Amino acid sequence: MIVILKPNPNLDQLESLKNWLIGKGIQIHTSLGTTQMILGLVGDTSTLDIDLISALDIVEDVKRIQEPYKNANRKFHPEDTIIPIGNTQIGGGTLTIMAGPCSVESESQIIEVAKAVKASGATMLRGGAFKPRTSPYAFQGMGAEGIELLKLARAETGLPIVSEIMDAAQLPLFDDVDVIQVGARNMQNFNLLKILGAQPKPVMIKRGLSSTYEEWLMSAEYVMASGNEQVILCERGIRTFETYTRNTLDLAAIPVLRHLTHLPIIIDPSHATGRYALVAPLAMGAVATGCDGLLIEVHNDPAHALSDGPQSLNPEAFDKLNRRILALHAFMSTGEGRA
Amino acid sequence: MIVILKPNPNLDQLESLKNWLIGKGIQIHTSLGTTQMILGLVGDTSTLDIDLISALDIVEDVKRIQEPYKNANRKFHPEDTIIPIGNTQIGGGTLTIMAGPCSVESESQIIEVAKAVKASGATMLRGGAFKPRTSPYAFQGMGAEGIELLKLARAETGLPIVSEIMDAAQLPLFDDVDVIQVGARNMQNFNLLKILGAQPKPVMIKRGLSSTYEEWLMSAEYVMASGNEQVILCERGIRTFETYTRNTLDLAAIPVLRHLTHLPIIIDPSHATGRYALVAPLAMGAVATGCDGLLIEVHNDPAHALSDGPQSLNPEAFDKLNRRILALHAFMSTGEGRA
Amino acid sequence: MIVILKPNPNLDQLESLKNWLIGKGIQIHTSLGTTQMILGLVGDTSTLDIDLISALDIVEDVKRIQEPYKNANRKFHPEDTIIPIGNTQIGGGTLTIMAGPCSVESESQIIEVAKAVKASGATMLRGGAFKPRTSPYAFQGMGAEGIELLKLARAETGLPIVSEIMDAAQLPLFDDVDVIQVGARNMQNFNLLKILGAQPKPVMIKRGLSSTYEEWLMSAEYVMASGNEQVILCERGIRTFETYTRNTLDLAAIPVLRHLTHLPIIIDPSHATGRYALVAPLAMGAVATGCDGLLIEVHNDPAHALSDGPQSLNPEAFDKLNRRILALHAFMSTGEGRA
Amino acid sequence: MIVILKPNPNLDQLESLKNWLIGKGIQIHTSLGTTQMILGLVGDTSTLDIDLISALDIVEDVKRIQEPYKNANRKFHPEDTIIPIGNTQIGGGTLTIMAGPCSVESESQIIEVAKAVKASGATMLRGGAFKPRTSPYAFQGMGAEGIELLKLARAETGLPIVSEIMDAAQLPLFDDVDVIQVGARNMQNFNLLKILGAQPKPVMIKRGLSSTYEEWLMSAEYVMASGNEQVILCERGIRTFETYTRNTLDLAAIPVLRHLTHLPIIIDPSHATGRYALVAPLAMGAVATGCDGLLIEVHNDPAHALSDGPQSLNPEAFDKLNRRILALHAFMSTGEGRA
Repeated sequence: MIVILKPNPNLDQLESLKNWLIGKGIQIHTSLGTTQMILGLVGDTSTLDIDLISALDIVEDVKRIQEPYKNANRKFHPEDTIIPIGNTQIGGGTLTIMAGPCSVESESQIIEVAKAVKASGATMLRGGAFKPRTSPYAFQGMGAEGIELLKLARAETGLPIVSEIMDAAQLPLFDDVDVIQVGARNMQNFNLLKILGAQPKPVMIKRGLSSTYEEWLMSAEYVMASGNEQVILCERGIRTFETYTRNTLDLAAIPVLRHLTHLPIIIDPSHATGRYALVAPLAMGAVATGCDGLLIEVHNDPAHALSDGPQSLNPEAFDKLNRRILALHAFMSTGEGRA
Repeated sequence: MIVILKPNPNLDQLESLKNWLIGKGIQIHTSLGTTQMILGLVGDTSTLDIDLISALDIVEDVKRIQEPYKNANRKFHPEDTIIPIGNTQIGGGTLTIMAGPCSVESESQIIEVAKAVKASGATMLRGGAFKPRTSPYAFQGMGAEGIELLKLARAETGLPIVSEIMDAAQLPLFDDVDVIQVGARNMQNFNLLKILGAQPKPVMIKRGLSSTYEEWLMSAEYVMASGNEQVILCERGIRTFETYTRNTLDLAAIPVLRHLTHLPIIIDPSHATGRYALVAPLAMGAVATGCDGLLIEVHNDPAHALSDGPQSLNPEAFDKLNRRILALHAFMSTGEGRA
Repeated sequence: MIVILKPNPNLDQLESLKNWLIGKGIQIHTSLGTTQMILGLVGDTSTLDIDLISALDIVEDVKRIQEPYKNANRKFHPEDTIIPIGNTQIGGGTLTIMAGPCSVESESQIIEVAKAVKASGATMLRGGAFKPRTSPYAFQGMGAEGIELLKLARAETGLPIVSEIMDAAQLPLFDDVDVIQVGARNMQNFNLLKILGAQPKPVMIKRGLSSTYEEWLMSAEYVMASGNEQVILCERGIRTFETYTRNTLDLAAIPVLRHLTHLPIIIDPSHATGRYALVAPLAMGAVATGCDGLLIEVHNDPAHALSDGPQSLNPEAFDKLNRRILALHAFMSTGEGRA
Repeated sequence: MIVILKPNPNLDQLESLKNWLIGKGIQIHTSLGTTQMILGLVGDTSTLDIDLISALDIVEDVKRIQEPYKNANRKFHPEDTIIPIGNTQIGGGTLTIMAGPCSVESESQIIEVAKAVKASGATMLRGGAFKPRTSPYAFQGMGAEGIELLKLARAETGLPIVSEIMDAAQLPLFDDVDVIQVGARNMQNFNLLKILGAQPKPVMIKRGLSSTYEEWLMSAEYVMASGNEQVILCERGIRTFETYTRNTLDLAAIPVLRHLTHLPIIIDPSHATGRYALVAPLAMGAVATGCDGLLIEVHNDPAHALSDGPQSLNPEAFDKLNRRILALHAFMSTGEGRA
């Protein structure tokens, strides 16, 4: 951590600051510039509150050098995290294809879609039982019943299931869900993150609409610091000034996160764009950029889906796309596309 | 609602759409342009799912005319909402000054600050007991004990108290808090909003970091649709590309919301900027723009505040500022500044 | 165009508006809703000033249905534009690889890089002679001499050259440059666009840092409306709240523009990210998403480049990357990746 | 400047870097942390190219301590800049009111508006002769004739005039314009800035739609480094995700710039919001926040203005507003609002 002092700092206050830091086990290296003094803090600065130091009268600015996350940090955990799910895994060179409808709507719907996506090569079934909707008047999901239908579809197809939790009180319903998803709007619901850190199921954290990479990793850190190391990150588009697409899919997140963290990275082109014609090109782009998996909405009847219809593919379109995706993954990992 | 069809739509599908709409009690006005057909939908379109219609093959775009919120809409409720709190009120021409520390830290701290801000003319005491912090390693607030200390400070000074709830499970602790605050990161925690709509205390909803006016009003609508009409909106800065300030305070929110809704509007210049030198000019700017109140951080010892120190004023600075604020409010409401 | 009137509009003003529109050759379809009247305008509304109509007292909002660009619009020009450059072309299924240093620095540098990128399969040489730099104290490019050195490198290798113009007064120097680039900061320098529309060389327009797809296409329209149909669009990242990367590369631009326009689309992963470790994964991602070409910075000595060094690859890294890129393009266009 | 090295840097490269820096007259202070080495560079680092250093293999990150601008920097020029214009001045405690139509349309229009705004207390007349319009099909301004009409209006009323230049080639036409405005889209047209730095008229630089404070000040620095110290900064809203208003007016710019620079700061609430109902509240807010002046669109017939009508006030509304503005400025500078 670097502390930049204001010109001509009060020397008593400077002495207090130094003593306080030394008391915390921090070593201080002082650089005296032409107009300003700089303190280089050496030691475990992750426990220092940057805001506290910034607040001092004599301090102009504080810059952090070390990342504020540890468990999620590749520096301290160089090997990729691999998360076993049933007979499959997330990370470690595999490509996870999570496919299914935005909302679970009925037994026949979810089973029909599950069978279709399995036949096309999907490795997990996704489906929403609790739906975060902007409007209180919109369909809010089937709730507990939706979870039960997902389990039925799993029993029928063998596909592990992933579904979104919206509130800590719903946790008992997720006991037997294979991956628990935290939505973008709950990415900084810190109580929920802590509770998910204290249970054993893998947690997939979607990036908040305006969350930085660091904030996103800090949310992963909340779960990991509470004891659950099985965290998956899912990029689903960020909010920008461009309104033609629902959000702006940030594929740079893939190589950036690969560098910063050991956690697997899933891309959701369906929610990011909100338009199904954009899903296929961006799914292909995400695989070539190096993601660990995709989350793709597939609906047996997109025109009548109860939520998020415009971003869904039908099973035929998904089948065609997934063949291309799997071929591209092979090309990238064992063919001429290999880095 | 306006439905713009693609050129040469399939006529069977068009017929189905029209019949479906008529079945919902909607009247349809058709305009045939040179290249495209447009349907004007008349009736109560707030129950139509815009995504569903957009999903149809024959539809190019759907544009909403009517706002999707009703309870919060000034069109259906032209009179300003006034919220009585103890001997005072929020809205209706008064200027509410909520002042206090970011975090409650000790009995002596909160009582000292409460007395100081009351003496300077504050009308409510704010203080955080549960603190949403980006890092799991940062101070998370005193919790239930913090709420008790706020009540002590209220007993001592008579100032009503406002504090942030982070999770529905905390609700019993807020039984005797005068205004319950929903933080920016929880603005779209829809379960929490529903639960707050089913209890009687006024709710102050902070704007999400990247939430539009409409999304913000939809969150108010969640609370109101669940039965609680006492909602206050608080602008606290939005996330933009500019990083010199923590966020960008959007004062246009004041006249925009005044037009769209009847709910009172509070401005928080402390969190928006993250720098105490900016609090005074922006607080004055907010009052001249026409807000119903301010949320200002005041700390008895800003340099040692356990959280958010850099944005806090000390009691002397607050006293000086609040005298200017109150004079400006008088100038704006009964003096030469009156519109 | 749809005109939404305020409730209870003044009927005289409404009559005036209607007469004015009819005088412009517009047909009017009126829909009377429960609370509001809507006018559907049919005819050539591209000549109507949307701001003018919005300004009327009786008008609440105006929504455009038709895109405001014509020459760049795929609806009126369904075939892809193909731009012949020397022995090669941009668009039409080819993959254009524009490679070279950010700045031309010396004869030996540009010739060495040109030979290297040609050997690796690049199809054009890029190099900056006039450099838009945020600071007046930073290196501003070699100017006219830089252009001459690019021509030397072209003579040596046969690679067509692309370079950025910063001001209309520089145009004579670009007489013999194969593609004239307009930088992001000049995307809405409308005088420059008009002048480039009145000369015969192809123009590559980089997207402005915060420009929407529509604004970008309107800039292409400026060039095309002035007589030059040879326009190329180059996505180079947009400005968002995320500061870890210099900008956020928006690969959704590829399928979106493919739908909206017939003009070729180039992706610049080097400027978008500002970090060379991100260039390779995003270049691969862009090709799999379907771009018509890439703009990649290559420097013979990245550590001593006079500008933008951190985003440059050296020739060895470029060679390795370009082999993968070309293989991926073959996989996508004639192999299993084909849509 | 702080250079953070990667763990275990190559020692030869480190030695080279140090020697290069010493050769530039920079002193180096080394801090050896637990995992990383940090170099504190002391001396005139404004001539060092931060990108060059970042590009080195051994460097992880470089952080600037000193601002990269000098002429515009309050640290080196503590006194406020005051710009004399005719009998009046900009800065130094005065409140400059620049009022007038977006576009000059006719002699009668501009003279009528000029007389009206003068009678209401405006101190300068603004009017566009060259108009940057997104569409090539929209009205582009009267050009040279518009400038002549502004001069006529000045002769008639005595009000100094301000108008926008779009291209260096137009400079001769601006010889007798009192303040030359650079529009938001040209804020980083560096050639234009240099040319304006080499002529004697004051230059008002509007903030780019997505420009940071630092980039904006660097544009001022371009003009000042070329010899013209008479620079005025004008905030006109930044581009954010919120689309209800045209842009988001950033009033924090006022106290931030007051701290960083000695140049005067003008606020343009008309362009920022694009809606005339928002102009009055935000103009009042800007004055209370402490700006040096306002740029307000006034049109004699807003409903028929040829451009930007929706953001214009008519003379009666402006008169009412300006009385409040002047009273508020008196309250803020000599009354109870004084800081």
